[in-house]
Amino acid sequence: MFLPYDQGLEHGPRDFFRNPAAADPSYIVRLAVEGGFNGVAMQVGNAEKFYAEHAGQVPLILKLNGRTELPSADAPLSPLNASVGDAVRLGADAVGYTLYVGSARQAEDFAQFRTVRADAEAHGMPIVVWAYPRGSAVQAAGGQDSFYAVDYAARTAAELGADVVKVNFPDPTATTGVPEPYDLEVSTPQAVASVVASAGRALVVFSGGAKASDKAVLTRTREAMDAGATGVIYGRNIWQRDHDESLRFAAQLRDILARYPTVREDPS
Amino acid sequence: MFLPYDQGLEHGPRDFFRNPAAADPSYIVRLAVEGGFNGVAMQVGNAEKFYAEHAGQVPLILKLNGRTELPSADAPLSPLNASVGDAVRLGADAVGYTLYVGSARQAEDFAQFRTVRADAEAHGMPIVVWAYPRGSAVQAAGGQDSFYAVDYAARTAAELGADVVKVNFPDPTATTGVPEPYDLEVSTPQAVASVVASAGRALVVFSGGAKASDKAVLTRTREAMDAGATGVIYGRNIWQRDHDESLRFAAQLRDILARYPTVREDPS
Amino acid sequence: MFLPYDQGLEHGPRDFFRNPAAADPSYIVRLAVEGGFNGVAMQVGNAEKFYAEHAGQVPLILKLNGRTELPSADAPLSPLNASVGDAVRLGADAVGYTLYVGSARQAEDFAQFRTVRADAEAHGMPIVVWAYPRGSAVQAAGGQDSFYAVDYAARTAAELGADVVKVNFPDPTATTGVPEPYDLEVSTPQAVASVVASAGRALVVFSGGAKASDKAVLTRTREAMDAGATGVIYGRNIWQRDHDESLRFAAQLRDILARYPTVREDPS
Amino acid sequence: MFLPYDQGLEHGPRDFFRNPAAADPSYIVRLAVEGGFNGVAMQVGNAEKFYAEHAGQVPLILKLNGRTELPSADAPLSPLNASVGDAVRLGADAVGYTLYVGSARQAEDFAQFRTVRADAEAHGMPIVVWAYPRGSAVQAAGGQDSFYAVDYAARTAAELGADVVKVNFPDPTATTGVPEPYDLEVSTPQAVASVVASAGRALVVFSGGAKASDKAVLTRTREAMDAGATGVIYGRNIWQRDHDESLRFAAQLRDILARYPTVREDPS
Amino acid sequence: MFLPYDQGLEHGPRDFFRNPAAADPSYIVRLAVEGGFNGVAMQVGNAEKFYAEHAGQVPLILKLNGRTELPSADAPLSPLNASVGDAVRLGADAVGYTLYVGSARQAEDFAQFRTVRADAEAHGMPIVVWAYPRGSAVQAAGGQDSFYAVDYAARTAAELGADVVKVNFPDPTATTGVPEPYDLEVSTPQAVASVVASAGRALVVFSGGAKASDKAVLTRTREAMDAGATGVIYGRNIWQRDHDESLRFAAQLRDILARYPTVREDPS
Repeated sequence: MFLPYDQGLEHGPRDFFRNPAAADPSYIVRLAVEGGFNGVAMQVGNAEKFYAEHAGQVPLILKLNGRTELPSADAPLSPLNASVGDAVRLGADAVGYTLYVGSARQAEDFAQFRTVRADAEAHGMPIVVWAYPRGSAVQAAGGQDSFYAVDYAARTAAELGADVVKVNFPDPTATTGVPEPYDLEVSTPQAVASVVASAGRALVVFSGGAKASDKAVLTRTREAMDAGATGVIYGRNIWQRDHDESLRFAAQLRDILARYPTVREDPS
Repeated sequence: MFLPYDQGLEHGPRDFFRNPAAADPSYIVRLAVEGGFNGVAMQVGNAEKFYAEHAGQVPLILKLNGRTELPSADAPLSPLNASVGDAVRLGADAVGYTLYVGSARQAEDFAQFRTVRADAEAHGMPIVVWAYPRGSAVQAAGGQDSFYAVDYAARTAAELGADVVKVNFPDPTATTGVPEPYDLEVSTPQAVASVVASAGRALVVFSGGAKASDKAVLTRTREAMDAGATGVIYGRNIWQRDHDESLRFAAQLRDILARYPTVREDPS
Repeated sequence: MFLPYDQGLEHGPRDFFRNPAAADPSYIVRLAVEGGFNGVAMQVGNAEKFYAEHAGQVPLILKLNGRTELPSADAPLSPLNASVGDAVRLGADAVGYTLYVGSARQAEDFAQFRTVRADAEAHGMPIVVWAYPRGSAVQAAGGQDSFYAVDYAARTAAELGADVVKVNFPDPTATTGVPEPYDLEVSTPQAVASVVASAGRALVVFSGGAKASDKAVLTRTREAMDAGATGVIYGRNIWQRDHDESLRFAAQLRDILARYPTVREDPS
Repeated sequence: MFLPYDQGLEHGPRDFFRNPAAADPSYIVRLAVEGGFNGVAMQVGNAEKFYAEHAGQVPLILKLNGRTELPSADAPLSPLNASVGDAVRLGADAVGYTLYVGSARQAEDFAQFRTVRADAEAHGMPIVVWAYPRGSAVQAAGGQDSFYAVDYAARTAAELGADVVKVNFPDPTATTGVPEPYDLEVSTPQAVASVVASAGRALVVFSGGAKASDKAVLTRTREAMDAGATGVIYGRNIWQRDHDESLRFAAQLRDILARYPTVREDPS
Repeated sequence: MFLPYDQGLEHGPRDFFRNPAAADPSYIVRLAVEGGFNGVAMQVGNAEKFYAEHAGQVPLILKLNGRTELPSADAPLSPLNASVGDAVRLGADAVGYTLYVGSARQAEDFAQFRTVRADAEAHGMPIVVWAYPRGSAVQAAGGQDSFYAVDYAARTAAELGADVVKVNFPDPTATTGVPEPYDLEVSTPQAVASVVASAGRALVVFSGGAKASDKAVLTRTREAMDAGATGVIYGRNIWQRDHDESLRFAAQLRDILARYPTVREDPS
């Protein structure tokens, strides 16, 4: 159960208006500690200034790249703003990388990821890949949440060397423009299971996206875990409510996750 | 209280016609000494030829990148023209970097900034980021001075590792095209306070822009400091008048700033 | 006889729906061992997580670059996602590289290949080049399978330093838009022989493409070998059927190949 | 008084038809020696093959970058074709660099110049910057010889670290499209003096451009020197006439320059 | 008298259909030995696999860059596919480089050439430059064989540091769109002599282009040598005929060249 906190860069401070305390990275790190999260993900600027005082209390996933929502997303690329060396220096337990599968700038992205993978392997640092289908080609093929797109993104991250893959929940009803056999609608659990299988031995965690009702989030979490997910990585659904509510909801999620074995059986 | 002197490159010598003496970098460095400024910011060419004789009398912020106003600003990028190594060699106390948040070339900018941050950290050199929203996406979302744009720019600089963030005063009336909740007008002090909060532990200094009336500048300065700003960085409002007037106005600003504590309380 | 397994990246998991077991890289490596293949080609992510337990049982061709089918293929470039150093570390016997002959980004491709060739030579590692005509210029000149395009691609790979060239079967009936003398139709065996000659001392293996009938594949295999091919590299025609069928068909192919001498006579 | 000889590359051999002997770099170096020039500027190919035999007789300014007039000049960039290391090896006393102020590729230009400046400083080699306003933005703002453009170019070169700035004579009548206060016509001597002031402690030499009448060139030279110029750098006005005429005219120029003090007083 | 063999890459195997034996690089190297050529030029792939067995029998010019004719030639760039280090390792006596003078990608080309020149000088390796005017600007200015274009290309190569310049025969009748004074038609010998003069101390060899009648080729050879050329570099005119015919024609060429002094007098 991870707590991602890169929305200040990716979406801007507008994500903090529901709960202004969440604009303070120190508040988030404390929340991660109190909520018993297995890791908190943040950019280098925040990690440098706010993580040290809580080091050892919650693992850090240093997010190595990022972008703002301002420039056009027709051909997005998320440039590196930190290095594996920074992660080592800051005591991180893993690094995070956003890979825009399908973007017209995918070639640059793969090349950039290669340097991260090589550095991470040299330092024994696991890589969590935000495997996000994006760009105009993806829009034309079912959109970024289609089963086709999410399945392909999970596979791509695994083929390139991810240790953990973070994906959105696949939407098997998005079949317009997708290639065979994805044009045949399957159930959500089938789609989730296929995504988990496509990632091979890379662990799969599902992200939450915009804030939804508690019930919807809990249901989706159970579905994902039933289908073989390793865990979840929810940000706005956690910290876009007040402090005690955040902790209460985190506890509910933890209860669900505790019902599943820590290590998946190898499918082979 | 900083004195910026990069306008000769950014705008050209036209900024010096109101007070031709200001075209001479030596005059500006002396003014910074006499006016009791906490730093003077300039490009490498000027720093190399004019700072040495006043080294130790006023701190130097070596501005590492810059551009001219001539090429189209649809997708601006401010290329490096100096290095952290130059800053060390010239005895600078900090480096300055212009980050164009929202530019279509933002990915290149982030990548370039990363090299600066890494070098600066290796040399223990603080980084002042000119956090400027720019480019066609910004023009479509309230313009470069909108609360949305300035708030996002301050946050972006902090997430990427700035120690000091230089922004324009936010204009909360610029709500056309901005996303929720920025489309709801707030007061200027609220907007300034939000910008300061978005920057986390990075210090925030507000810039002055084009020359305005003394009264307007002093009022804005008080507003900024009340809302939690660390200081101000005014250039044209200082040196686009004759020598003694510059010193008199600097003294007024210094008086205002002296009423506020040097170190902000940590908001967390 | 090689078993290529880069389709998960190049086409996405849709290639695994005919035989879901094939989504598991471990299954494929075991199939390569059991089927007596001379090598299995895969990307770094799969090689790292699935090859080690079978190392020594079947040679590994580490595929160093790849792309997804999502971004437009008007000007494709297959970026590196692994290095020759990775190949050495993983115990590979050769490296694989996709060269898009004719792409508008060909200049970048050649430059990238140069670094691979230099590294491979420094480590004594043979290079298998997927020599694929691609891009709008190729579409206008008979298409990617025309005799003209395949012949030119094989030659290009050899001139640039390939040790083994992987090409599609040339289609001598695709004569629209091709330059002299390719506008004169020749027989398939003549075309295959010409491609083999164009590659000089680089060995030529033919790929299978989408799944076809067993009879068609076996006929084509005989034609290729009669015309001087070194071998074949079939993926979907092997693993898009159930396990025992895969082994049965691999045995048939091995029988054909066994009838030809291992080392070609030097044509000079 | 410098003799520039980069026109064979910048304009092509057509500049040599008025005096075919001038196509021979050896002729030009001898002319520089006989005419008592303070330096001859040339590209690396010519310097390597023709300068050595006259080394010590006239200083060499190795021009480090250049382009041909063939590709479109909408967004020009003058790529490096030699290094500061070449200049050291060839016994040059300075390096030359063309900076296209205002070009859409200005960012690349600044980045490239930065490497030159860093290398030149490391070797104690002065830098002469050909500060040339160029590109479509410049065309829209008074053109490349407007007072605005030349003044801005001189300032830009100085801010980036030039030791000597080479500019064209400013034309104060070109006021269409320029920003305030350049839209007010001033006298040529005022414009020249402003350009010299904008360059700070960088020395300013004025170039001659296409061949003009002797009288016009001599008048302009006196105007420039009266306004504070350090010297002149004339090429075609020298060598686009026969040998003895070249020497006679160079002597006239030398006489003018001799009337001015070698070292300018510091304006500060 | 050089034998170039880069057509397999530049034009594709279609150049080998007139004499299929010529597709075999081994055949070409033997032809160069038997025909008494002063050098054979080829790409790294062919040099690595076919030159070693004849090393010492004929000098090797390792061609370091190349492209296929497939991608659009509007803005061509010939990327490096080998290094000077490869040339040293393979026992080459010189390196070859194609420079596309006038291409919109000329800046990249110059930058790339600079690295080759620096490496070549460090290893004492002479550089033969294929100085080819190309791109849309060249098409608009008389075309790639106009006297203007060829003269400018020869000069450019020399200014950038070529030791030997390979150009096409200039066509002085191509005067449409060329600048003064090239719009005045001169004789072919005058044009050839001008090209030789423009190249300074760089040696000039003329290429043959597509196969022409023996008589035309011999006449052009005499004209070139009369005008000061150093030699010729003919490929298709040699090997697009059968073996004995090739040797007979090479002997005729050698007889012509033998009538001229080996070392040109220095024009200065």
